[in-house]
Amino acid sequence: MSILETPYQELAQEASRDLKGDGVSALLKQVVQLALRFLTKECDRLKLKSSVPGKEYFSFRVKGKKNKFSRPINSKLFDPGTAVKLIDRLVSAELAGVSQAQRGRALYSAAMSYCCATDLLKSDDRKTPATFFEIFVGHLASRAFNINPHKKIDVLALAPGYSLPTDFVFDLGPAKSRIHLPVKISTRERIIQVWAHQRVLDGVYGINRFRGILVCLTETNMVRKDLSVLEVCLPEQWAIYQMFISQLYRIYYFDLPVKYAPLAKRYPIHSGQQLFRVL
Amino acid sequence: MSILETPYQELAQEASRDLKGDGVSALLKQVVQLALRFLTKECDRLKLKSSVPGKEYFSFRVKGKKNKFSRPINSKLFDPGTAVKLIDRLVSAELAGVSQAQRGRALYSAAMSYCCATDLLKSDDRKTPATFFEIFVGHLASRAFNINPHKKIDVLALAPGYSLPTDFVFDLGPAKSRIHLPVKISTRERIIQVWAHQRVLDGVYGINRFRGILVCLTETNMVRKDLSVLEVCLPEQWAIYQMFISQLYRIYYFDLPVKYAPLAKRYPIHSGQQLFRVL
Repeated sequence: MSILETPYQELAQEASRDLKGDGVSALLKQVVQLALRFLTKECDRLKLKSSVPGKEYFSFRVKGKKNKFSRPINSKLFDPGTAVKLIDRLVSAELAGVSQAQRGRALYSAAMSYCCATDLLKSDDRKTPATFFEIFVGHLASRAFNINPHKKIDVLALAPGYSLPTDFVFDLGPAKSRIHLPVKISTRERIIQVWAHQRVLDGVYGINRFRGILVCLTETNMVRKDLSVLEVCLPEQWAIYQMFISQLYRIYYFDLPVKYAPLAKRYPIHSGQQLFRVL
Repeated sequence: MSILETPYQELAQEASRDLKGDGVSALLKQVVQLALRFLTKECDRLKLKSSVPGKEYFSFRVKGKKNKFSRPINSKLFDPGTAVKLIDRLVSAELAGVSQAQRGRALYSAAMSYCCATDLLKSDDRKTPATFFEIFVGHLASRAFNINPHKKIDVLALAPGYSLPTDFVFDLGPAKSRIHLPVKISTRERIIQVWAHQRVLDGVYGINRFRGILVCLTETNMVRKDLSVLEVCLPEQWAIYQMFISQLYRIYYFDLPVKYAPLAKRYPIHSGQQLFRVL
């Protein structure tokens, strides 16, 4: 059993009880600190070949174990020192006054910590990193909105009492749009689901009753044969989904892919507002 | 290397060259015959516990190997004798005159043959059974429509020359709706993609310009701990997708799930037509 197993289990349990609570803050702090300590003390960094203009990547390997790699890490964004320094403010979502650049590095480092450690401590575990990231983002969002999210909505059009499972939904009160907050480690071709769910929400409740905010970690992919890193992006397909399925209100990345950045300014997908932002 | 490896590779290659051609008919015949011979000669049947009212299931195991099971098979639909007897007509899509019951058993047995054999001959190969089923259904449909499908459509609204990858699309001529034919071994939660793609087609080309016809094999799932079989179905969610995302024209199953059958007659999802049919 890995050092992260017990704290992760406790975190998942506490998050399902009270996602925005101080208990989750404390457990997130514990998991991130343990993971960062493991990565910085017990692992070496291996520089990877970057196929992405302007970005550099490395991978962690446990010292003495040459054949197992963590997922690729953006060198400029990974900054465990800042993450540890800001850890209490980070896990409580009290980041006002911290510069955007520092905040971005702290968030990225904390989010990647558990994922990379799990890549090295377990075999082929794709589920718990995704859940960890969902808890991390959901916790920060629920503290920022000061309310816990739901994971289903009533669809009275269909049948009395019937509810549809959803991603996080935050109800900000009667005179405000609710927030539909899907959280994904990476998107690949499954992402069309997010626009489709937004379409259902628009249809059931009316346009702008739910604002769709997609939060993603990264789109990196490591090519094993030459240890190179690329970003898997489908900007043309996203433009089509945004035009023809539904309209997401914002898309945030912890590590904004180079090919998605221009979508923020692209007519007619989103005019007058920035669709894409980094957190 | 398994006995099916080479014929499968040849089939996949030929299918990408000319899906409706006689070459694919011949290779499908060879793969189905080899797979059925392997299953009936070299394997034993193990009866499974059915949690589905009115259906019975078994699993194949290689003789002498107790620990590896094929996916569950519907006992009433699996009929290798009929599949072999009708094999030439089956792979040429010349089934007129064959009773619906016989046709259903021959199609189900042929479709399951490669999938079950692969479950036993390889480890954790989920990709080639899905591709085999797609080729099988795509071949029959392209012979029935007498035209090869495309796997992309032009989206001129976005940019000159840009095309969107799709499932099979059959162009039946200027005065007819085109056919949008997604083919899935089973659906699970990913299936919302099909309604979302249909929505994009409706938006780009106009309503009823593409008729969506979803073809699925089965929704069975085997619970390992007690060797029981259930059908994973989400009829309420499908009803919501059909009401709020887009309208599929038909959904066909090789093994129609018990919980989806009533959707065929359910108001307001589809009135005046049968949405669900078995092939």
